[in-house]
Amino acid sequence: MVYQLKKIKKIIESIKDNEYFHQAFLHTSYLNELNLRRRVDSEQNSENNLQHSYETLEFLGDSILNFYTSLFIYHKFPNYAEGQMSKLKQLMVQESTLAHLSKEIGLGEFLQLGTGERKNRGAEKESILADIFESFVAALYLEKGGKMVYRFLNLTIFTWIEGKENMVWDYKSQLQEYCQAHKNKIVYQLKRSLRVEHQQLFIMEVSDGLGTFRESGKGRSKKEAEQQAAAKVIRKLGIGEEEKNK
Amino acid sequence: MVYQLKKIKKIIESIKDNEYFHQAFLHTSYLNELNLRRRVDSEQNSENNLQHSYETLEFLGDSILNFYTSLFIYHKFPNYAEGQMSKLKQLMVQESTLAHLSKEIGLGEFLQLGTGERKNRGAEKESILADIFESFVAALYLEKGGKMVYRFLNLTIFTWIEGKENMVWDYKSQLQEYCQAHKNKIVYQLKRSLRVEHQQLFIMEVSDGLGTFRESGKGRSKKEAEQQAAAKVIRKLGIGEEEKNK
Repeated sequence: MVYQLKKIKKIIESIKDNEYFHQAFLHTSYLNELNLRRRVDSEQNSENNLQHSYETLEFLGDSILNFYTSLFIYHKFPNYAEGQMSKLKQLMVQESTLAHLSKEIGLGEFLQLGTGERKNRGAEKESILADIFESFVAALYLEKGGKMVYRFLNLTIFTWIEGKENMVWDYKSQLQEYCQAHKNKIVYQLKRSLRVEHQQLFIMEVSDGLGTFRESGKGRSKKEAEQQAAAKVIRKLGIGEEEKNK
Repeated sequence: MVYQLKKIKKIIESIKDNEYFHQAFLHTSYLNELNLRRRVDSEQNSENNLQHSYETLEFLGDSILNFYTSLFIYHKFPNYAEGQMSKLKQLMVQESTLAHLSKEIGLGEFLQLGTGERKNRGAEKESILADIFESFVAALYLEKGGKMVYRFLNLTIFTWIEGKENMVWDYKSQLQEYCQAHKNKIVYQLKRSLRVEHQQLFIMEVSDGLGTFRESGKGRSKKEAEQQAAAKVIRKLGIGEEEKNK
């Protein structure tokens, strides 16, 4: 996927010096360290703590993201049933998608982590990368309003979903997407092919390079069997269900 | 709670003749019946079905509601931690709250149900009443825009939460609210009072008129013991968790 990075960076730059932007990238680990140092230095009590990490902005950003994404889906796919809309939205706002986008547009470089979290490679963690996508969206909303947020999402999430609309029903692509994000490789293998009552039947097995899963599916074509196998893995791994249970 | 019903009805009336309003109250059961009748009458195929019940509007309305509620909380309680904001929001957008509001402002009277669902007293079901609050919000958004939605929510949910902000941490009040909504009665009873190492200890039991729950809690005061008992019930019944797991 090719993003219009120049336009995106311009939007990021436009609020870079603002207070909400600063807060949007302040991880609790950094804040805790800072507060501890200040207390030791000045023997002040904890009431002088800096108050907010990015978490409250993330709370707000999550709902902003959900709102504009729902609106986008509602207008773009007016004939979808409610269940299809929900699934598509889930795919668009799930952790791995937001983390991918965060990486692509370089939000991680603004992140402020504590020493421990930095050593822990916190800036590469999917959960943190997804968090700051949400907190950044909130900062952008508070500084520039809804229209600018829609423009930003248009350049990121709504670009990302282009051509993937049908992926919701395509388990192989879903699994592919997931494994790519986790630097994992998928292997499909024909296990058996047989004839049952004049019909050809294929049994395909899917497994991965890291050895996390191995499932098989059957179908009247190899592709059908692969889809069934992939669907089983997706259910077992609970992919895409993250958002639902948040 | 006293709502400004005149103002609310005026907002409802303002979009009453619009297409989205009509759709917002169209239950699938009604639509199915209608489609069936049309097919029998004209022997047309199912492609001529009327297409949409309120479900897609409900999908959109849910995210609109979450967005404006989050925004309200973020601005009104800027010093809340993220967890407090989330809990408060949950309370505000949970099914029983929306159903209560739907009833108070009379949204049920616009509902179009199929014969079976009507006999089943569908118009009194909490789930359906909550649904149409959401679908109405979406219709209002699409017809009149965000400012009008905020005004409507100000007159309903944001009015409802006034004075209840601390209820999130008060399990007794939460349980009270829940039981009132379900026409159920709560009884607290002292089970034991004892002295442990110079300290008074109370064991209180909470149960309900319908016989759904019976839990006990202990504490250094009766109130503390009651809170603990109520918290246990809330966890067991999963109250307030509904929205999370949607």
